[in-house]
Amino acid sequence: MEQLLYEGKAKQLFTTEDPNVLRVKYKDDATAFNGEKKAKLEGKGELNNRITAKFFQYLAERGIPNHFIKVISPTEQLVKKMNMIPLEVVVRNRVAGSLIKRIGLSEGFKLSQPIIEFYYKQDELGDPLLNQDHIAVLELATEEQLMEMKKIAKQVNLLLNEWAEQQHIILVDFKLEFGSLDGKILLADEISPDTCRFWDKQSGEILDKDRFRKDLGQVTDAYQEILLRLGGNEDV
Amino acid sequence: MEQLLYEGKAKQLFTTEDPNVLRVKYKDDATAFNGEKKAKLEGKGELNNRITAKFFQYLAERGIPNHFIKVISPTEQLVKKMNMIPLEVVVRNRVAGSLIKRIGLSEGFKLSQPIIEFYYKQDELGDPLLNQDHIAVLELATEEQLMEMKKIAKQVNLLLNEWAEQQHIILVDFKLEFGSLDGKILLADEISPDTCRFWDKQSGEILDKDRFRKDLGQVTDAYQEILLRLGGNEDV
Ligand SMILES: Nc1ncnc2c1ncn2[C@@H]1O[C@H](COP(=O)(O)OP(=O)(O)O)[C@@H](O)[C@H]1O
Ligand SMILES: Nc1ncnc2c1ncn2[C@@H]1O[C@H](COP(=O)(O)OP(=O)(O)O)[C@@H](O)[C@H]1O
Ligand SMILES: [Mg+2]
Ligand SMILES: [Mg+2]
Repeated sequence: MEQLLYEGKAKQLFTTEDPNVLRVKYKDDATAFNGEKKAKLEGKGELNNRITAKFFQYLAERGIPNHFIKVISPTEQLVKKMNMIPLEVVVRNRVAGSLIKRIGLSEGFKLSQPIIEFYYKQDELGDPLLNQDHIAVLELATEEQLMEMKKIAKQVNLLLNEWAEQQHIILVDFKLEFGSLDGKILLADEISPDTCRFWDKQSGEILDKDRFRKDLGQVTDAYQEILLRLGGNEDV
Repeated sequence: MEQLLYEGKAKQLFTTEDPNVLRVKYKDDATAFNGEKKAKLEGKGELNNRITAKFFQYLAERGIPNHFIKVISPTEQLVKKMNMIPLEVVVRNRVAGSLIKRIGLSEGFKLSQPIIEFYYKQDELGDPLLNQDHIAVLELATEEQLMEMKKIAKQVNLLLNEWAEQQHIILVDFKLEFGSLDGKILLADEISPDTCRFWDKQSGEILDKDRFRKDLGQVTDAYQEILLRLGGNEDV
């Protein structure tokens, strides 16, 4: 019997007949500011399911293996079941969000080199920034795993930037999650406008969850635009 | 003419006839929570001037060169003028203060290894935690300087722990500041109960600025006790 394993803020995870495979159902729920702001956005689940699938296929084809197996319904995909590492790995190319107050530079400032940050995935603590010593003490990942995550995160950044360039999009930042499987680190979770900041290069328009955070409206229209630029011509 | 170069929260810096030397005057002002809580504590300036001198002498004698030259009055000392690196280097042996909420462990928890943290010395930003990428982008220190600061911080931790052990004190954590001089990294600023957490091993009594932060009273009595355990038998 298929069982609900975990319900998160954006997705549900179900077991399948295959113990190595999970079914991920993308929900329409949108949350921000550590769950303080909430809404239902019709169509978001379907859009993020399709967008994540596209990004993971794009990355797999270019040498970044990941947990994605296949889409099985408008809002569902199968993935490899992983031992998740409770870290959010954030890669930043430009200043936005919490980085503004951390380093005191303006939103949009282009960084001289990408910044990689590790946040502790712990809602009760408010997902605090960690350094390598905190991670070691908490035994969240070995030094080797940390190096591996950084390496993959940089490669993903290069590849996502290549796509973004072609699509006249500025990739401001994005968040990755990793798991381990048979002793190897593998990219997991999702890559979508919920977890990235995308700005249209020509108009400067925001094409991601900041539309929700900042009450800009037309949130799912922006997600639809990202799907379109990923070659997803199916209308959602 | 001697000039006031800088007035901080706890000290004043004056130029001297020698362009390579500054006069530091320790004030009685106590501040906490990024300056929100303030008070004057009579005798604190004198105590911190003496305590810092003792710690810097102790460290210099054991192979950690630093900016301290000599005490010239109850509240004043001469130091080498440095190019200060705007980082607060925090070394932690046990959980206390902001670490409680960052890693979710209880106050007093003994860490399996020391944690070293770098905070951006920027009152307007609230002294945020930085990682090595932030430091690189802001060009606050080179990678080499970072490594050197970590190395010195660990050595200082070993030496301060040796003293603390002998004095039946638990050294919970402390903050260091470094500057560069002729291309070399040198320990600077102060080491006092304003910048360390000391707990009496037998009684558990707090012997540092947390007495002020937590309104425990008898703040300068605790500082006097630290001076005593440093061999400072002069009554202040
Ligand atoms: N391949 C996988 N195997 C197991 N867990 C996964 C996998 N991919 C993602 N997860 C986890 O599933 C959950 C996804 O649901 P989400 O709604 O995003 O949750 P959260 O609110 O915790 O971020 C996350 O906790 C994520 O770490
Ligand atoms: N050797 C030195 N040369 C130059 N500046 C120093 C030296 N040692 C400490 N400082 C700086 O002097 C100031 C000390 O005053 P303080 O009252 O502690 O200031 P703050 O409130 O900025 O921490 C700090 O900004 C510190 O970085
Ligand atoms: Mg999530
Ligand atoms: Mg200071």
